[in-house]
Amino acid sequence: MNSRLKSIHSVLKQRSLDGLLVSLPANISYLTESLSRDAYFLVSPEGNVYFTDSRYTEEVRSFLKDNAKFKECNGFVFEHIAEAIMDLGLKNIGFEERYLPFAEFSKIKEFAKGNFNLIPTHGVVEEKRQIKDGNEILKLRKATRITDLVLRHIQQFLVPGIKEIEIVAEVERFIRYQGARASAFEIIVASGPNSSQPHHLSGGRKLKNNEPVMIDLGVDYQGYKSDLTRVLFLGKINTLVRKVYDIVLKAQALALNRIRPGAEMAEIDRVAREYIGAHGYAGYFTHNLGHGFGLEIHEAPHISGREASAIKPGMTFTVEPGIYLPGKFGIRIEDMVLITTKGCEVISGAINK
Amino acid sequence: MNSRLKSIHSVLKQRSLDGLLVSLPANISYLTESLSRDAYFLVSPEGNVYFTDSRYTEEVRSFLKDNAKFKECNGFVFEHIAEAIMDLGLKNIGFEERYLPFAEFSKIKEFAKGNFNLIPTHGVVEEKRQIKDGNEILKLRKATRITDLVLRHIQQFLVPGIKEIEIVAEVERFIRYQGARASAFEIIVASGPNSSQPHHLSGGRKLKNNEPVMIDLGVDYQGYKSDLTRVLFLGKINTLVRKVYDIVLKAQALALNRIRPGAEMAEIDRVAREYIGAHGYAGYFTHNLGHGFGLEIHEAPHISGREASAIKPGMTFTVEPGIYLPGKFGIRIEDMVLITTKGCEVISGAINK
Repeated sequence: MNSRLKSIHSVLKQRSLDGLLVSLPANISYLTESLSRDAYFLVSPEGNVYFTDSRYTEEVRSFLKDNAKFKECNGFVFEHIAEAIMDLGLKNIGFEERYLPFAEFSKIKEFAKGNFNLIPTHGVVEEKRQIKDGNEILKLRKATRITDLVLRHIQQFLVPGIKEIEIVAEVERFIRYQGARASAFEIIVASGPNSSQPHHLSGGRKLKNNEPVMIDLGVDYQGYKSDLTRVLFLGKINTLVRKVYDIVLKAQALALNRIRPGAEMAEIDRVAREYIGAHGYAGYFTHNLGHGFGLEIHEAPHISGREASAIKPGMTFTVEPGIYLPGKFGIRIEDMVLITTKGCEVISGAINK
Repeated sequence: MNSRLKSIHSVLKQRSLDGLLVSLPANISYLTESLSRDAYFLVSPEGNVYFTDSRYTEEVRSFLKDNAKFKECNGFVFEHIAEAIMDLGLKNIGFEERYLPFAEFSKIKEFAKGNFNLIPTHGVVEEKRQIKDGNEILKLRKATRITDLVLRHIQQFLVPGIKEIEIVAEVERFIRYQGARASAFEIIVASGPNSSQPHHLSGGRKLKNNEPVMIDLGVDYQGYKSDLTRVLFLGKINTLVRKVYDIVLKAQALALNRIRPGAEMAEIDRVAREYIGAHGYAGYFTHNLGHGFGLEIHEAPHISGREASAIKPGMTFTVEPGIYLPGKFGIRIEDMVLITTKGCEVISGAINK
């Protein structure tokens, strides 16, 4: 059995749980070292059981090995889960309360007929996932390298008259030739005034001269995601755009400079936010400073003003201050950091900004 | 207020509900005629309220119009939802039990402090979505036309030596030049023995001569999805592949022939399954015959042997029998149908198979 599963077994013992029903695909992928989907995974020192339907049978047999039993379920999956729990004689079963829908909880409870208890948990697997191991870091570095390559590649496409969606098209094509299996999320190309929407849907607007173009992109390399934002310019940069860009860039540099093991997450967010606020744009930096990335594009930790926990070596997260002026333009600069034992490495640092 | 919201208000009255908390993105998109994401939507005859965070403020204001109030929530969304319910004086609130996670249910219940009841519901909006209106059908036809174009386009790429993922790359590029905003799901290109996995992850395998290539693709046109599978051939087709192909094709034709308003869904599945079974492949057709498509790639109705409901005009669903021989190859042929008042139209029928 792999060490990730063993470490979850230890956590379960500490928490006096006999088992954990894992339903978040990224958590199942992590524990089985695969690209799992449409599955449930019962983890317990008495035995691990993987549930999915027959569309995946061939694939599952190839990655599951001796890590778990495989139960093929075509329909009735919740009944099968309840039966497996009872067959193993488990009493107190944790479940992922943020990911298990109410109806699925109710179904399993019904099939339990009082033979076991369902106990809400959060973060059992996610806490492990926050600290990346060597193999995960290699994959994240590779995803970052592909992101670098695509950003260089598409600079030649940034000409007046091309549509936002056509740049997305080229990104989607190019990354798959570089070893990525997919984009990590819906690529954002936001030109001119569209850049004032942090999560703009790329569309038919054509790029124009003397406008900023915000590009937020990331790739999935063997399940591991990258996330990077740059603002590029066609033609001249007007004074306000330049001024705002420099404020965001400086805010990011100040935050990056403060990142080290032991620092409080809220502090990092505050450093960037205060600098932006001091320049009169407090109301225009409308999201958190950053988020973890790995098997999910947004995962723990959350670099927010409400997060009092400490940064630890092995964490990977984004640092992405932004200023958005509705109807005008927006600037976000996003990099990816890896926490080392002494400080932090900006793994996307070589990528021009 | 739009007619979709009004019709939900009527359903709520029939079910003695004062309001419905909608959390499935496709349901919110349907009710607001938008591409909604990261939102919650409270629908009630006393007032509709849309909740999301400030990343979407500008976009939401442009589509929400007089259909709903907008509540921007940066954190504390469940508290805001509970407050809105209490402000409107509502008592019995339905929620979507298959889409609301247990933790979110618990949070809202906690903030309710006994002032309102949360009642599990399923399918309130999905039932409406099963019957497509004229505008939706136009979008689905457009998505289908793009799917046709891409399938014709990529035939030139199907040469020995090209990798599966490179074909996916070209699909992802091409569709965005034809007006699609994205692919509808992860495109499957499964060559040779990989085709025996119904949901193969396209990868680095190179196409070879005298092998089948299964391509399952679909696009998203203004939120509406298409879904089509074809098996193409490089070089010669061996006897077994040809035999299995003909069985699947005939099974599909028999099913298509039986589709009409009033027919039982299970009957359609059974027609295809029995034909495949009669030829000795009963154990190798391992999934349902089809599924609805629209704002989601998989939605109601489910064309399965367990589904006793009747087919109705305005429904759109796939018909996709398959035979998968592990380690050897698989054949699936998937078309999209629109139920008319008299029978069914295969909207992907012009696409070569």
